[in-house]
Amino acid sequence: MKIAIISTIVASALMAATPLMQDAKNAGLLPIPAKQKELNKLIDNPKNPITYAKVELGKKLFFDTRLSKSGLISCNTCHNLATGGVDGLQAAVGHKWSQNPHHLNSPTVYNAVFFSSQFWDGRSPDVENQAQGPIQAAPEMAATPEHIVSVVTSMPAYVAEFKKAYGDKPITFELVADTIATFERTLVTPAPYDKFLQGNDKALTPVQKKGLKTFIDLGCTSCHTGIALGGEMQAFGVVAPYKYAHIGDFAGNKDKMVKVPTLRNITETAPYFHNGAVATLKEAIQEMGRIQLGATVTDEQASDIQEFFKSLEGKKPNIVYPQLPACSATTPKPDIN
Amino acid sequence: MKIAIISTIVASALMAATPLMQDAKNAGLLPIPAKQKELNKLIDNPKNPITYAKVELGKKLFFDTRLSKSGLISCNTCHNLATGGVDGLQAAVGHKWSQNPHHLNSPTVYNAVFFSSQFWDGRSPDVENQAQGPIQAAPEMAATPEHIVSVVTSMPAYVAEFKKAYGDKPITFELVADTIATFERTLVTPAPYDKFLQGNDKALTPVQKKGLKTFIDLGCTSCHTGIALGGEMQAFGVVAPYKYAHIGDFAGNKDKMVKVPTLRNITETAPYFHNGAVATLKEAIQEMGRIQLGATVTDEQASDIQEFFKSLEGKKPNIVYPQLPACSATTPKPDIN
Repeated sequence: MKIAIISTIVASALMAATPLMQDAKNAGLLPIPAKQKELNKLIDNPKNPITYAKVELGKKLFFDTRLSKSGLISCNTCHNLATGGVDGLQAAVGHKWSQNPHHLNSPTVYNAVFFSSQFWDGRSPDVENQAQGPIQAAPEMAATPEHIVSVVTSMPAYVAEFKKAYGDKPITFELVADTIATFERTLVTPAPYDKFLQGNDKALTPVQKKGLKTFIDLGCTSCHTGIALGGEMQAFGVVAPYKYAHIGDFAGNKDKMVKVPTLRNITETAPYFHNGAVATLKEAIQEMGRIQLGATVTDEQASDIQEFFKSLEGKKPNIVYPQLPACSATTPKPDIN
Repeated sequence: MKIAIISTIVASALMAATPLMQDAKNAGLLPIPAKQKELNKLIDNPKNPITYAKVELGKKLFFDTRLSKSGLISCNTCHNLATGGVDGLQAAVGHKWSQNPHHLNSPTVYNAVFFSSQFWDGRSPDVENQAQGPIQAAPEMAATPEHIVSVVTSMPAYVAEFKKAYGDKPITFELVADTIATFERTLVTPAPYDKFLQGNDKALTPVQKKGLKTFIDLGCTSCHTGIALGGEMQAFGVVAPYKYAHIGDFAGNKDKMVKVPTLRNITETAPYFHNGAVATLKEAIQEMGRIQLGATVTDEQASDIQEFFKSLEGKKPNIVYPQLPACSATTPKPDIN
């Protein structure tokens, strides 16, 4: 009886929203739902519902270097799931060692399902559409849709897996991209921060709470909000011009709007900004204050915010490295030129 | 009682060596031991005994692209564990998209622990020594020993893992290579063929048995023998010169001896030969007969041998894709030039 009462008291204490939790909620910050059912609703694609068969197949395709012209580059090359879903370079490097021609930094694929659009210039509506881009881009995977279909249909084990996932639906380039995207939709990373927003005051350290408060009070949440703490399009350099504006641009976007990067796992995804020109989180935080908010972020404030960011380090899904089907006699040969 | 008798009869039938099993044994063919204890004795390195902590750390290092100068290339780039432990290219491609200057094909890392020496020219005694090579080679990972030590020691989580694995032993380049090698020592792939050699006559199909018999009768086992069906040094082109001798050479080896590649998982590791010039197994088998044995291998014989090779497709170890420590402020920056 005593134990039951204590449990109830503890549970109430955990659930009672503190003023900081309330502030976070008012600023639009949202947790990744703890309940799988609720989460599934958020990450699912009604046009191509997530199934186990699609996710397993999508994982294989995500890691399959043979989708690239050279046979050397997979989705995982730039969106490396071992290192926060990024490559750690300033700008992506792809086919024939080409650097991204717009000097754009590879964004993380973790939690990308929560973004309202994809790519730095937001030109793509979802991960399905995004996945078609880098596969075809000459300085990235440099493949054609025909190459992709030839590769996949040349291996009976892949054909069987597509049949299992989609029945008799023809294997098209779009279906391959959709399948990769289905896997990507599962790449969400719940963190201590989510437990805090869900009512567990102990999930953040005192300094992390101080950092979160500073983050909200400074107005960072005007862009870094929602589940992803980012993912929407915003004007860039609204108060002052960006320090490293001389490198990198948003080719597809006349208005110089930029997709706000997620802050989830941000401690793992240096270097920062669309052009990867900023090496440290401290500089990134202070530069953002200066150019977006007209605020001088002190070293102490930046340090507290950095501590808060540690609470956004999420638990990555357990991914067994796939065994891919062997090439057949009809599989296109890799071409490194 | 009846069941016990039947079981005994079945067990005896399974264990009685057939003439083909006896032929295989006489030809020096050996199974991967079914008993973990026996296997452990074979794969262990007495100078650096295998432990769970070393293998887990070695796996991380094997997949860590930050060990390369560019930050883009890991051991797994050329020895991809998803595709038979190879990259599927004719010749390896590394730093700045350089092709291997000797046009040498990346050999599989699966079962490499069973080879008597490493590299095509056999210049390296074991996987520990081998692992030091590609990390430093300018056209491969292009790193220096100092770079490797800087990268690893810049990340507290790595330092902690080394401490767990080795106590207070200093973190040197050699220790990093040894740790990668410890992981590689576990990459063995038992196959139906092993069950056959262990006495289970049903483990091979009738055509596979025919293929194995042809393989032995032709004399292929004079080189492709032992546990790895390869792994020793042999003279190359003893009866006739190799058809594609104009590309690729063994720079380190005056005598033109070549390391016999393992036939385990050979159906997954095209293209073939030291220079990757042969696209199909059929051509590889017939060319070997011609230049090494002075034998014309008929299409039917080649087809049977190919069927036998399918029994060498092994079960790969279950590898959870690692989560690597995040870079710190002191981690060397990737340099793609």
